[in-house]
Amino acid sequence: MRTYLDCFPCFLTQALRAGRIATDDETKIKKVLDEVGMMLREIPLDSTPPQSGRWIYRKVGEITGIPDPYRDIKKESTRKALSLYPYLKKQVASSDDGLLTAIRVAIAGNVIDFGSNWNFDLNTDVDDVLEKDFALFDYGQFKDRLNAANEILYIGDNAGECVFDRILIEEMNRPVTYAVRGAPIINDATYEDAVDAGIDGVATIISTGTDAPGAILETCSAEFKKVYHRSSFIISKGQGNYEALSMEPEPILFLLKIKCHIIAKDIGVKKGDIVLKANKGPRKK
Amino acid sequence: MRTYLDCFPCFLTQALRAGRIATDDETKIKKVLDEVGMMLREIPLDSTPPQSGRWIYRKVGEITGIPDPYRDIKKESTRKALSLYPYLKKQVASSDDGLLTAIRVAIAGNVIDFGSNWNFDLNTDVDDVLEKDFALFDYGQFKDRLNAANEILYIGDNAGECVFDRILIEEMNRPVTYAVRGAPIINDATYEDAVDAGIDGVATIISTGTDAPGAILETCSAEFKKVYHRSSFIISKGQGNYEALSMEPEPILFLLKIKCHIIAKDIGVKKGDIVLKANKGPRKK
Repeated sequence: MRTYLDCFPCFLTQALRAGRIATDDETKIKKVLDEVGMMLREIPLDSTPPQSGRWIYRKVGEITGIPDPYRDIKKESTRKALSLYPYLKKQVASSDDGLLTAIRVAIAGNVIDFGSNWNFDLNTDVDDVLEKDFALFDYGQFKDRLNAANEILYIGDNAGECVFDRILIEEMNRPVTYAVRGAPIINDATYEDAVDAGIDGVATIISTGTDAPGAILETCSAEFKKVYHRSSFIISKGQGNYEALSMEPEPILFLLKIKCHIIAKDIGVKKGDIVLKANKGPRKK
Repeated sequence: MRTYLDCFPCFLTQALRAGRIATDDETKIKKVLDEVGMMLREIPLDSTPPQSGRWIYRKVGEITGIPDPYRDIKKESTRKALSLYPYLKKQVASSDDGLLTAIRVAIAGNVIDFGSNWNFDLNTDVDDVLEKDFALFDYGQFKDRLNAANEILYIGDNAGECVFDRILIEEMNRPVTYAVRGAPIINDATYEDAVDAGIDGVATIISTGTDAPGAILETCSAEFKKVYHRSSFIISKGQGNYEALSMEPEPILFLLKIKCHIIAKDIGVKKGDIVLKANKGPRKK
């Protein structure tokens, strides 16, 4: 997804939010805003938003001296998500279509997002997503590709959300490679967060090799790209990965909850919607 | 009022909004965002927000070549407001306390604000304010000062809103000097807008002598300051004038609807509240 004009005030809002998580020192936070303000002119409209997110959050770390301000929040998200695990497993087990319920569970986990949204109540929002109608529902393609796939690449999004992803991975019951961010950024899942969620018991965890809050291919490691290009079935979780990969031609299935009106407009849905969207582009070979 | 950290993303949002009113050219609007981004570090936290608003909206004019993008919107606001005039006069005439209803009418007009809020429906919002409880209600002081005043300085805010102010001026029935902005800025009222609203028939219109979206004294003309300092009763309309004058010691009565959560926090009320607030500071002499 390209960067829209509306993304620019949002970059500043995100810098402010991250600055406040990192420090109480108003002078330092003002410096974060000043420097991010100066960076805006370096951001072209044809870049993807996570490319800028990467520099912005790095700047917050530099100025505040706190490179991972969301560390404690991530631990707490995982703890809360793990406490919901038995309930969510029961929902899947008692459902007529376990796979579909597990997909809903995975999308429900995507409400945990401290980048674009702070106003979520995990328990309420999860139940909401379990019931909600899909705005885009390419479930047929999901099942077809799953049935044909020998190996699945599952690109994770946020810490805590990994617990919900684990339930979908368990339900799919196929070999899965689970990709996490290469370094802490916002509340995105890193290797440690995926292990805390128990992903290591159900999938092979790899790093995208980038600290961008979305799998921007040109910033990813060769190792990740090798797995990515050989995969016939790629699951992309969340807004950051959608922003990074929406224009790629590979057969990706995007699973996300829409928390930003600009992404909503880009996809052609509404803020608050849940989406299971197959990438329409032809496969690059 | 000082500039809070939250004002910085809002400065960019306002620049984007004004840029879009002025032009469809995305490249020009991007340049507006780039240049406003660069200005942020020049904005100290102890300045008032309208000081920055002045520079930001001036920058929008410079880059887009449209110094008064809100011109048509202002004309339309005044037209709509004039169509409500007979209804509003009837509300005041049929009320038990005509002065209080006229104050409510004046505050109701303050919903017309393209700086901080676009989502207003004039008819609905006016009726809402006519019924709503005040969050701060220094009506006793308003009446005492009105009774003691020989001359009133009434500092206007937005175009269209002037029509509502006219009703309060008519109800007070005292000599009033009505101050407008010295040049177009956002949808703030200028001399022309006040005349369009019929203010010239009920008050002497003067200019603050500044193009700031609030009467920041150090930027106002000597003529305005002379009137300001000799006034024993000053009515200040809207957020911009509150931001500019809230720390001044003169006997000001602020009439406004709260459309921004930062101003709400500064005053100690909630967004959406209506306020009739006397300045507590001692008179400078």
